Amino acid sequence: NAAVLSRRDFFLKGFLSLSVPRSCESITVEDYEQAAKTLLTALFIREKYSRLAYHCFPRTTAKFLRSANNEKWKICPVPSEGPYSMEDLPQNLNYSLRMKDGIIYVYDNEDALKQDQPRSLPYPDLETFAIDMSHVLAMIADGPTKTYCHRRLNFLMSKFHLHEMLNEMAELKELKSVPHRDFYNVRKVDTHIHAAACMNQKHLLKFIKDTYKTEADRVVLEKGGKKFTLKQVFDNLKMDPYDLTVDSLDVHAGRQTFHRFDKFNSKYNPVGASELREIYIKSDNYINGEYFARLIKEVAHDLEESKYQHAEPRLSIYGRATEEWDNLSKWFIKQKLHSPNMRWIIQVPRIYDIFRSKKIVPNFAKILENIFLPLFQATINPQKHKETHVFLKHVTGFDSVDDESKHSDHIFTYKSPKPEEWTMEENPPYTYYLFHMYANIMVLNNLRKERGLNTFQFRPHCGEAGSITHLVSAFLTADNISHGLNLKKSPVLQYLYYLTQVPIAMSPLSNNSLFLEYSKNPLREFLQKGLCVSLSTDDPLQFHYTKEALMEEYAIAAQLWKLSTCDVCEIARNSVLQSGLSHQEKKHFLGENYLQDGPEGNDIRRTNVAQIRMAYRHETLCNELSFLVDAVKSEAVAEKAS
Amino acid sequence: NAAVLSRRDFFLKGFLSLSVPRSCESITVEDYEQAAKTLLTALFIREKYSRLAYHCFPRTTAKFLRSANNEKWKICPVPSEGPYSMEDLPQNLNYSLRMKDGIIYVYDNEDALKQDQPRSLPYPDLETFAIDMSHVLAMIADGPTKTYCHRRLNFLMSKFHLHEMLNEMAELKELKSVPHRDFYNVRKVDTHIHAAACMNQKHLLKFIKDTYKTEADRVVLEKGGKKFTLKQVFDNLKMDPYDLTVDSLDVHAGRQTFHRFDKFNSKYNPVGASELREIYIKSDNYINGEYFARLIKEVAHDLEESKYQHAEPRLSIYGRATEEWDNLSKWFIKQKLHSPNMRWIIQVPRIYDIFRSKKIVPNFAKILENIFLPLFQATINPQKHKETHVFLKHVTGFDSVDDESKHSDHIFTYKSPKPEEWTMEENPPYTYYLFHMYANIMVLNNLRKERGLNTFQFRPHCGEAGSITHLVSAFLTADNISHGLNLKKSPVLQYLYYLTQVPIAMSPLSNNSLFLEYSKNPLREFLQKGLCVSLSTDDPLQFHYTKEALMEEYAIAAQLWKLSTCDVCEIARNSVLQSGLSHQEKKHFLGENYLQDGPEGNDIRRTNVAQIRMAYRHETLCNELSFLVDAVKSEAVAEKAS
Repeated sequence: NAAVLSRRDFFLKGFLSLSVPRSCESITVEDYEQAAKTLLTALFIREKYSRLAYHCFPRTTAKFLRSANNEKWKICPVPSEGPYSMEDLPQNLNYSLRMKDGIIYVYDNEDALKQDQPRSLPYPDLETFAIDMSHVLAMIADGPTKTYCHRRLNFLMSKFHLHEMLNEMAELKELKSVPHRDFYNVRKVDTHIHAAACMNQKHLLKFIKDTYKTEADRVVLEKGGKKFTLKQVFDNLKMDPYDLTVDSLDVHAGRQTFHRFDKFNSKYNPVGASELREIYIKSDNYINGEYFARLIKEVAHDLEESKYQHAEPRLSIYGRATEEWDNLSKWFIKQKLHSPNMRWIIQVPRIYDIFRSKKIVPNFAKILENIFLPLFQATINPQKHKETHVFLKHVTGFDSVDDESKHSDHIFTYKSPKPEEWTMEENPPYTYYLFHMYANIMVLNNLRKERGLNTFQFRPHCGEAGSITHLVSAFLTADNISHGLNLKKSPVLQYLYYLTQVPIAMSPLSNNSLFLEYSKNPLREFLQKGLCVSLSTDDPLQFHYTKEALMEEYAIAAQLWKLSTCDVCEIARNSVLQSGLSHQEKKHFLGENYLQDGPEGNDIRRTNVAQIRMAYRHETLCNELSFLVDAVKSEAVAEKAS
Repeated sequence: NAAVLSRRDFFLKGFLSLSVPRSCESITVEDYEQAAKTLLTALFIREKYSRLAYHCFPRTTAKFLRSANNEKWKICPVPSEGPYSMEDLPQNLNYSLRMKDGIIYVYDNEDALKQDQPRSLPYPDLETFAIDMSHVLAMIADGPTKTYCHRRLNFLMSKFHLHEMLNEMAELKELKSVPHRDFYNVRKVDTHIHAAACMNQKHLLKFIKDTYKTEADRVVLEKGGKKFTLKQVFDNLKMDPYDLTVDSLDVHAGRQTFHRFDKFNSKYNPVGASELREIYIKSDNYINGEYFARLIKEVAHDLEESKYQHAEPRLSIYGRATEEWDNLSKWFIKQKLHSPNMRWIIQVPRIYDIFRSKKIVPNFAKILENIFLPLFQATINPQKHKETHVFLKHVTGFDSVDDESKHSDHIFTYKSPKPEEWTMEENPPYTYYLFHMYANIMVLNNLRKERGLNTFQFRPHCGEAGSITHLVSAFLTADNISHGLNLKKSPVLQYLYYLTQVPIAMSPLSNNSLFLEYSKNPLREFLQKGLCVSLSTDDPLQFHYTKEALMEEYAIAAQLWKLSTCDVCEIARNSVLQSGLSHQEKKHFLGENYLQDGPEGNDIRRTNVAQIRMAYRHETLCNELSFLVDAVKSEAVAEKAS
């Protein structure tokens, strides 16, 4: 549509000339060049960490980084997905493995191990990481950089408002002319949901009643050497499941949970009884996690029925024991949990302190070993670890979870004790957890890449509460994050997350019950500025009322923030991009060329996102990036001239 | 629970002594007595109008009014419901009817009519009504009364906050101990929903596609003497229903509809095409309203499936022609629209000006006659008007609808032209409409009562926008109202609506798209103060996203305002009380003694409303009422003494 485009062009050109911050009152040319340089360095740092871990880094940003370095742009290879089959397993390689400084090293054989000559894979070290961290930490406190980022973010906001006023109707017109596609049938992924809370309260209640009706005499629990049938369990709780209600189930978050993560966590116990949690929402129990699997499969069935909704549930690995992976994999396979509408993520709770105080582990390294060694073993010798190997094909990433608002006394530096030396009862800080998870995932991904196996995204909970340094750690180590609320508090980090388009799975209803009132949630603001945000439910069991939790999440956001169809479809598109869905699926859901930038990468017939919107986002990002690159280049010219 | 009760007692007693406004800085004893007297007069006025029309008036308030007059309290008879049957129709009475001053008068026979001796039924007159109106209008502007009401409302608010802090956990405990009852299986009625928009956008879209798939060659429209098949209709619109989407359907309200009721009204036309509205959501068209009926029955089916959800859809009678009732009744019976989960309300749009300018009617009286004469005829001679008689058994009330923000030049007084004289093109004002609808409903109800037939509630849209005088008219004439937002603006009216417990069906999602941002909606505040509010959807077609519109409405309110289970169950209970469900049904849904006051009237096993809450509401209302009565009595004593 020529009229529309010319209006847009006019508007963008008008701005391009207006918006170059050559000489504003509060920022000098030197400051601007300095800020640009620092910001670019941060982008290079994230790019390095992303590439090492086979994480995503946006093509547009990468292109500009190449041009800043006068390098040529190479197209990043697309990861290919291995087929799903129990036969034809890759050969065993019988490499040797050893953990050193909390990171697993791979050796061709025992000799190489003895001589300490690991295979040539990238092994990150804590010192370099600490230095990179300190660079970004310094810049988020740097005055001129803060001013620069703050001004750019304000500008992005005003620019979007103008875009909206000029192009809202044109976007709508584009969408109306798309045949057979609307918000209801664009793909949307629930990018952040915990498997143990993926059903809503009414669903769990009905499930409990149904099992009691049909299987009251089944032995479901062993405790203190004694076995209990379902009937005995409820008798002991002095409770008749027929009378059970959503109120007595008491798993829903309420006013009592606001800023009380501890109270929230206890909501995972139906009727406040840990027995019921054990029976119904654990994978490793007396009934081999059968009920939990059935519940999840019912949720998966609903998603498949809806056709257009997907979810990425988190299953827990604690690092308490080596067998955890084996058990979880066997459960997954035996219960046939695969669903085309689900992709699996492993969440690791940050609870070393609990295991240490119970003397389950001697040091932090042991937890890391329990988590990662089985993965390396299954990757090296798949025929020896068939179940884990097969399960890992369905796993697309790792999450790090716990209450971020808990304070840590230890300050992470390059002098921090190595994981083997971390024997004290105190929990390591957030950054320490993140670095060591990232480091092992990175090595593992490189090893798996060599073998043509799928790699994993690191997708920690980050910025839900607590210190903003969490967001710095994730800026280096995460493919994408969940929550990101605290980006509100740091303009530099928020701008960096924008420039590198780090996807953020946001859950405003969850936040509303735990950390931040709905009306104060920054999601709309982030979306308007152009950050890559998606919507997710977190815990339907605790937060949602209707049968369709993800639709409830979208409906409330759309209603409260008066989001346009284009807005919600953009969020849905972001959710697919961010997800662990395969390249093939993303091509199918977003369009053949989804990896390309701007409107070329968008198939409006599949995403229902207006091309005007895509062009606006792309041009705006290029604009921001070119300022940085130009500043550095002009400085280089000036230096040469002098 | 003794502990709980004693805590509550302590708290209430503490307050009772604190809260008697004997001598505050800003209000003198004289002012207080004067305010009390005026307020009581307003209550007597509403009681009079309510009784005349067989509307509900709260027992508690009525008791206090009796005590103020030193009268005895008589229990109000419970309306009984006639059986649902096409046979055994009541006899024809062959009374004569005549409209005089816009109100239908009933005569025993033609002789009585000639001698102008109407049957002894109460016939309201405009003069008395105008005087009563002016009394209430004067008091809402009276300084001391405003101060008094403002202070009482503030007090009610603070008192509820205190109640919450003290008793929240005790209420929750009560609810947890109720077997088998929770928010999901308490009865809730969608107290305000328009039949033409009772399906959501996705539902309508699917229905259109389905009819096109199976009935493309059916003749569905006659226009300008030509007949069109469904295929031809879509061909003319240059549209393939297969490609139709929610976007192109374009019935959803968006940012464009805020404060634009005109734009909102046009959203009733799918794809902006009035042909599709004619075919799919009209009861009187070429296909005899078959599609519209099927759509409604699908919605009814979903409600029946849900079991606990009911709705009171509005069907339109315009007053354009005498046959409207006959057509609507035949449609209803032929299409078998009865559902146990639906009760029907007739909405009359306030669009005399349109009909007058098109010369369809000569004056306003003609519209009233077209609306009400058939009802009187069917009541008098049921065997002559079988269909209307049977349909009326399913009708429980009347609504008056249109954009309240439209300004009227005419100011209603006792000198306003009589309906027969209202021949100008200008639309009569809101109050004029309300009075004449009320007057005819009142006479009709008295006539029907004589015959043992069901009576009708008058339930106008009121206070959605426009002048606050609308709320004064409804205070006199309405059983209950929809919206009531403008009560925000008048403390006196708000307090009167509280004292008389006028039910208010509120639709915050509708308001959010049309008149008032969600966060500014007074629903929570009204609920806290103790006004009788319910939640309703208004137009799922335009506002809602999920399959369960009413649950979406409840979920958003609960999430955003952090309502407790007790809060939402209280709202649900209010919705049943307010509804046109029968006495038998209300007994079944709320408890045997639901007509009694306070905790005695509440069966917690059915309503899931805590008895502590019921006691709090009842004692608080009694407290407020007793201040008024005491003031008047002490004044009387003082007068006697002097």
